[in-house]
Amino acid sequence: MVATEAEITMEDLAQKLETHEHASAKHTKLVIIAWSGELDKVWPQMIMATTAAAMGMQTTIFFTFWGLFSLVKTDVGLTGDNWMQKMVAMMDRPGMEHLGLSKMNFAGAGPKMMKHLAKEHDVASPVELLEIARDLGVRMVPCQMTMDLLGLKREDMIDGLDDPAGAATMLMEAQEAITLFI
Amino acid sequence: MVATEAEITMEDLAQKLETHEHASAKHTKLVIIAWSGELDKVWPQMIMATTAAAMGMQTTIFFTFWGLFSLVKTDVGLTGDNWMQKMVAMMDRPGMEHLGLSKMNFAGAGPKMMKHLAKEHDVASPVELLEIARDLGVRMVPCQMTMDLLGLKREDMIDGLDDPAGAATMLMEAQEAITLFI
Amino acid sequence: MVATEAEITMEDLAQKLETHEHASAKHTKLVIIAWSGELDKVWPQMIMATTAAAMGMQTTIFFTFWGLFSLVKTDVGLTGDNWMQKMVAMMDRPGMEHLGLSKMNFAGAGPKMMKHLAKEHDVASPVELLEIARDLGVRMVPCQMTMDLLGLKREDMIDGLDDPAGAATMLMEAQEAITLFI
Repeated sequence: MVATEAEITMEDLAQKLETHEHASAKHTKLVIIAWSGELDKVWPQMIMATTAAAMGMQTTIFFTFWGLFSLVKTDVGLTGDNWMQKMVAMMDRPGMEHLGLSKMNFAGAGPKMMKHLAKEHDVASPVELLEIARDLGVRMVPCQMTMDLLGLKREDMIDGLDDPAGAATMLMEAQEAITLFI
Repeated sequence: MVATEAEITMEDLAQKLETHEHASAKHTKLVIIAWSGELDKVWPQMIMATTAAAMGMQTTIFFTFWGLFSLVKTDVGLTGDNWMQKMVAMMDRPGMEHLGLSKMNFAGAGPKMMKHLAKEHDVASPVELLEIARDLGVRMVPCQMTMDLLGLKREDMIDGLDDPAGAATMLMEAQEAITLFI
Repeated sequence: MVATEAEITMEDLAQKLETHEHASAKHTKLVIIAWSGELDKVWPQMIMATTAAAMGMQTTIFFTFWGLFSLVKTDVGLTGDNWMQKMVAMMDRPGMEHLGLSKMNFAGAGPKMMKHLAKEHDVASPVELLEIARDLGVRMVPCQMTMDLLGLKREDMIDGLDDPAGAATMLMEAQEAITLFI
């Protein structure tokens, strides 16, 4: 099982992990509070969520703050009602294709390098992992408060998401779950 | 319930959330290890703590490392016994009013913008949330080791805190709790 | 017990904490996902792990992404098979002696200062804490996927580690544990 991680691909993730692990999972739930929007944090968010779902765990990602940008359509320009939202809009281009790296961004060279590195080693990209997550039934919940702060509407978000919700819903979901703030 | 988050205010947080959620909470505890001192991390620390407390959960925030600065009185100059503590003192002005933002600080423009944005949308500021937390009975525990490292004394901290404690106390508190490192 | 944290040293950590806390620990496990490699994050990773182990908790640290660098021998130059791994290699010098600080690095002055500060106050350094952790029986698991991405082999890592593993193993380990992503 040690070697499985390096081979996570869209085609065989579910089958491979389920075979090995499903039987012994006692915890039934994983809740990830996806606060970060940078590539090197999105990766663990997605890899853990897809792995958990493939293991048969009930898995929910609650996307909040910078993490919410992972769910915004690539072609959406944030257009809040006022100049402040527009300033925020300028600083972050939404969508998984544009994710920076928390360390060593180097004018965009870092993320590109990391993605290539991952491709050569057959690790799925964040966008692919997002699709795998949906296919595996991971619940993806955008944070209502963050959406309101940034002037985002449901139609600005990618398809396949759960209804927006808040901290109370997340805490209810976290009852008896493994809960990670990433 | 989806809309409640955007309206968290001092006046009605407790009542609003309690009505909706209290009945079904099975986990009785939330422990937040508040390691970060930046505005965009302090917000989730405070929003989750106040929401949990309003839901009837026994809630503890353990403030450590950079997170400890949230509890230091605004007018306290850190005055350690030696030049090293003074260097640390120069780099961080304590108190919630001065919190930076982990991304896009822009000479202080980022946090100001974010606070205004929140105000327009009726989301409480970190200072207000700290007060709400105290009112709702959230236990706030400063990390003894960090206080020692920085030469801070009890009288340098805001009122209403629990006794300083360490990692062992925190881990005991985390038994059977939802535990988040933020 | 409040004062114990400030005196964590190699000599007496285990005895001191065990006396105070062991009896009442209900949770038997702590799992730390050590994602960060910076000094101010490595410290809480190590302090919590050693404290938990000293309290009699079954403790596992899963080192992934930047966190993996804590386990790489100081004299190892990362030598991947291709130019991309070499670029990553240039940006991070592995080994605990070189850890930066997530805030205020100041050309290396920040970490040095922090270590001196800790030494004066009798708090163990990360390297010492790593040794304490091994002595106390903390399981230290390097992430297989990260090793593959960076072209690292077992002989590049320090001694006393568990077999490399992946997210599925970590999630199994996290069943009924306090789980922290740091």
